[in-house]
Amino acid sequence: MATRLLQSADSAYDYPLLIKQLLQSNQRFETEHQIVSGEHRFSYAQFNERICRLANALKAAGIGPGDTVAVMDWDSHRYLECFFAVPMIGAVLHTVNIRLSPGQILYTMNHAEDDLVLVHDDFLPIIDGIKDQLETVKGYIQLTDQPENACSFESLGEYEALLAKADTAYDFPDFDENSIATTFYTTGTTGNPKGVFFSHRQLVLHTLNMVNTLQSRNCDSALLDHEGVYMPITPMFHVHAWGIPYAATMMGVQQVYPGRYEPNNLTRLIREEGVTFSHCVPTILQMVMQSGEAADTDFNGWQVIIGGSALTPGLAKQALESGIQPFSAYGMSETCPLMSMTRMDKNSYALPAEEQIALRTRAGLPSDLVDIQIWTPEGKVLANDGKSAGELVVRAPWLTQSYLNEPEKGAELWQGGWLHTGDIACIHPDGCIEIKDRIKDVIKTGGEWISSLEIERLISQHEDVAAVTVVGVPDERWGERPFAMIVPRREQLEAESIQQHLQRFVDDGTINKWAIPKAIQLVDDIPKTSVGKIDKKRIRAQLA
Amino acid sequence: MATRLLQSADSAYDYPLLIKQLLQSNQRFETEHQIVSGEHRFSYAQFNERICRLANALKAAGIGPGDTVAVMDWDSHRYLECFFAVPMIGAVLHTVNIRLSPGQILYTMNHAEDDLVLVHDDFLPIIDGIKDQLETVKGYIQLTDQPENACSFESLGEYEALLAKADTAYDFPDFDENSIATTFYTTGTTGNPKGVFFSHRQLVLHTLNMVNTLQSRNCDSALLDHEGVYMPITPMFHVHAWGIPYAATMMGVQQVYPGRYEPNNLTRLIREEGVTFSHCVPTILQMVMQSGEAADTDFNGWQVIIGGSALTPGLAKQALESGIQPFSAYGMSETCPLMSMTRMDKNSYALPAEEQIALRTRAGLPSDLVDIQIWTPEGKVLANDGKSAGELVVRAPWLTQSYLNEPEKGAELWQGGWLHTGDIACIHPDGCIEIKDRIKDVIKTGGEWISSLEIERLISQHEDVAAVTVVGVPDERWGERPFAMIVPRREQLEAESIQQHLQRFVDDGTINKWAIPKAIQLVDDIPKTSVGKIDKKRIRAQLA
Repeated sequence: MATRLLQSADSAYDYPLLIKQLLQSNQRFETEHQIVSGEHRFSYAQFNERICRLANALKAAGIGPGDTVAVMDWDSHRYLECFFAVPMIGAVLHTVNIRLSPGQILYTMNHAEDDLVLVHDDFLPIIDGIKDQLETVKGYIQLTDQPENACSFESLGEYEALLAKADTAYDFPDFDENSIATTFYTTGTTGNPKGVFFSHRQLVLHTLNMVNTLQSRNCDSALLDHEGVYMPITPMFHVHAWGIPYAATMMGVQQVYPGRYEPNNLTRLIREEGVTFSHCVPTILQMVMQSGEAADTDFNGWQVIIGGSALTPGLAKQALESGIQPFSAYGMSETCPLMSMTRMDKNSYALPAEEQIALRTRAGLPSDLVDIQIWTPEGKVLANDGKSAGELVVRAPWLTQSYLNEPEKGAELWQGGWLHTGDIACIHPDGCIEIKDRIKDVIKTGGEWISSLEIERLISQHEDVAAVTVVGVPDERWGERPFAMIVPRREQLEAESIQQHLQRFVDDGTINKWAIPKAIQLVDDIPKTSVGKIDKKRIRAQLA
Repeated sequence: MATRLLQSADSAYDYPLLIKQLLQSNQRFETEHQIVSGEHRFSYAQFNERICRLANALKAAGIGPGDTVAVMDWDSHRYLECFFAVPMIGAVLHTVNIRLSPGQILYTMNHAEDDLVLVHDDFLPIIDGIKDQLETVKGYIQLTDQPENACSFESLGEYEALLAKADTAYDFPDFDENSIATTFYTTGTTGNPKGVFFSHRQLVLHTLNMVNTLQSRNCDSALLDHEGVYMPITPMFHVHAWGIPYAATMMGVQQVYPGRYEPNNLTRLIREEGVTFSHCVPTILQMVMQSGEAADTDFNGWQVIIGGSALTPGLAKQALESGIQPFSAYGMSETCPLMSMTRMDKNSYALPAEEQIALRTRAGLPSDLVDIQIWTPEGKVLANDGKSAGELVVRAPWLTQSYLNEPEKGAELWQGGWLHTGDIACIHPDGCIEIKDRIKDVIKTGGEWISSLEIERLISQHEDVAAVTVVGVPDERWGERPFAMIVPRREQLEAESIQQHLQRFVDDGTINKWAIPKAIQLVDDIPKTSVGKIDKKRIRAQLA
């Protein structure tokens, strides 16, 4: 394409999209809002100074461009400082998933070639156990609020002590905007965790898009604006807490970092810090609403995006009854993560309550610049008619371009030039995405495909069901049959009552009769993965 | 810098930032809102189809990547279609400033090497006059709402007729995001107009930033959101109507294009179309408020950004009294244009009325990613203390990288790696930019520098003053002395009353006594440039 390219004057500044540029925004003039974390309260001026101090401390620890810095911490101001300082010096931030097994953590740290590890007291035992097998790590920095706690092995020192003696200024350099800024691992159903990675350019674009999206998805009140109070309840190692700490920092809002998630503490923080906006998985929302502190807490004014697992109509209804405004967002580790989010506009609010809840539980409208399509297994594009279901594929400026050092798996992810989400979905004419199921969780029975998510959604509407999951189990005659695992809200719940409840949906044509699980198990808890998602793989294994 | 660069899988899609990607946003699912222009009302689906038809019509006219397409039109849906279709096929859109003299228009069209010209009936006489001297133009397309009007010279046809017979689909290609998308000319005080130019990447980033900014600058109500109704009243040839048509289209809002600006028609459209958001120069705002239709119009709910010239406190007050929410934005042709905009947050609204007006009349807070500094003539950075004044210099991802084919002038613009605005300003500790004056409009008197804008601001507070401009005129004794040209609100205004009014500000130390103009001229109209700015150059020339 012989287009006319930019001609730049010799002295012109060719502005790269770098994470440091996010700080060239209103936060630098912010004097009122703070970053709250445990007992700490920092002004934005202090926060910016601490980023410089951390950069100098990292430099003193021998870290430079191209090196990798691993962080193992709960959600804290220190983690947020690493979100900025590590990539801003040209290094790569590895946000270690501390919920993986020690063996998996070891694998990821060697695979990412971590040079330096910042590790909170709570994870010292893990490092103690794998330390001798870490192949590239040259040093450790301790993260603690009890500096009297000795590190159980030799370290470069304690974070706050290192910052205290570091210089308060750092001249952050410019470099290629396609430099990797962050990396972390996603656990598939088989094999080793896979590394995804994001460049400075991708994170800046994702941040701009996130700010737009947060401001535009509720016509009644922005999910987050300059006057809002933000508290993440998605771990910072989990897709950069959805990248929202970058957005909140650019906007200069009041931020609250809750440390280790403890339901009563989360609820107390929401109340005492006046939190207006959070994001979490459904389980956490449920835990907060059921916490002891909830009785003393007015949740009105708290807006929450649910992601990771689907928001069920039951949970959405419960949240609304508590004064909470629940929204859904859709994304995955590979997508930075934001692809889509609920939009409640004037027309949405004019709908009957049940249809409003349906809107809130769908995956929402795609964000700006996000191109989505529904494909058949052969790659044919299906219509956005709210009915045709196929695999959701996506293009956006912030998707992982491969898996770290696994180009063949990356090529598979990007088959046909579109990122394959592995989700079965349809797109409604209004743009709303409705996720039907994970491709691998679809139940194939008697030549029919049944969505396990659809059955879960219907079962969750039964008043005595607190939580539910459905998987396909092998069946000699039918290939697979649905199996339901249910956490009852009352002890006297019977399987038959669930089946009768579902029969109504058979009668009105919503599902066919094969979708009613014959096997229903009542349990106290549904098995979860390290990141709190329902572990269907393990459930299937238990049943096999 | 040996950072780690992205590794992309072979099949991964490397997403370029192209204007076509702005259409990968919510507008494509929009079914309710329309694009209104004269008698025309198009749905977004029709608008998208018309962009494809136009692309095919351009191709049929022999236009391809790297070619330049000039448009001479009032603000219309056709212009908006050109904003997209021309760059989306890889060509360059030249938005011709139809207010320049025919000789200047000829110069810019030859300098930009226009290949094709889309020209509205009203400008056929201009083309008739310069046609024989246009060196690169190969064809013309007529823009008209009276297709029975014959074009006075040979053309390729009439726009609507060409679209009607064009195909409804076009596969817009990917290409380098640094390809030039638009070009237009800025008139300096001396010499020929200079061409600025913007790439696809720059316009996409500017659009994302514009959407963020419009959503965040009024805590009471977004300046523009999905439910808003947008009408530009800054010509589309003037820095892409500030780039806001791109933002409004990406958001899928209701848009109204007013054609040739006629105050009564503008006012009628505001009323009848329920316009909630516009932008214009102060003169237009005044014309709308003083139009005959204003008496029947409730301006409540209309938010307006003022730029191009400074919003005076007098005009801001008048607007507020009419129910209009006025805001200031700051930018220039070289900056795409957005650099900063007023932010009214909860704290601002808590201020006394006069201080609120002061906030609204300043240039506002820088937008995200915009880095600003105040420099001495020697390039020393001054403090953001609200007092230290110097030249405002800027970096952002969307600034013109040079002047078209004039690299030496581009190098001067970018002296020291920062774009020089030519404005004297200070930055307040809260980030608010206060423009003191154009460097060339500062009045040098008795060894002191006096800001002509400051004197204008104070004079405009006199209740009998409708409009005012102040320039420095040569003075043997003092070097220069201020001269004021005033449009009185009542006939009986006397120069003495203005001087007495200013004496109060001398008494309270706001200005020194040399700032009081001895020479005051009462006029019916202040001379304006082709783009409606006060023409101080001409005023000075008249006085010399």
